[in-house]
Amino acid sequence: MQKQTLNVTGMSCGHCQASVEGALKGLDGVSAVEVDLNSGKVEVTYDESKVSLENMKEAVEDQGYDVA
Amino acid sequence: MQKQTLNVTGMSCGHCQASVEGALKGLDGVSAVEVDLNSGKVEVTYDESKVSLENMKEAVEDQGYDVA
Repeated sequence: MQKQTLNVTGMSCGHCQASVEGALKGLDGVSAVEVDLNSGKVEVTYDESKVSLENMKEAVEDQGYDVA
Repeated sequence: MQKQTLNVTGMSCGHCQASVEGALKGLDGVSAVEVDLNSGKVEVTYDESKVSLENMKEAVEDQGYDVA
């Protein structure tokens, strides 16, 4: 298991937070997601043999947010 | 048919807009809803024999927004 913090910009409310959480949790290999809405920091716990950082960035970007 | 503009505060993004629109469109008697996210103005077209302004305010407030 690996932990990585993504810096996500554009999340403005609880709905945004839920969208990002849902997209990441929907990826096979992601076991936990913690979003801090104010800072935009999203901590993801994942199995690096199943999912890549690139997969996670794409999932967030597909929801309409940017990953720095 | 009647038209009324509600002043809704707290909508911060497209998800918020969708929540408010969905809640109002879900009311029997509401035929059209137009949300301006920037101003918070929500124009509702409705049949006043089926739905009251009070019903509409409650629907918006139930989504977590305030109606001025």
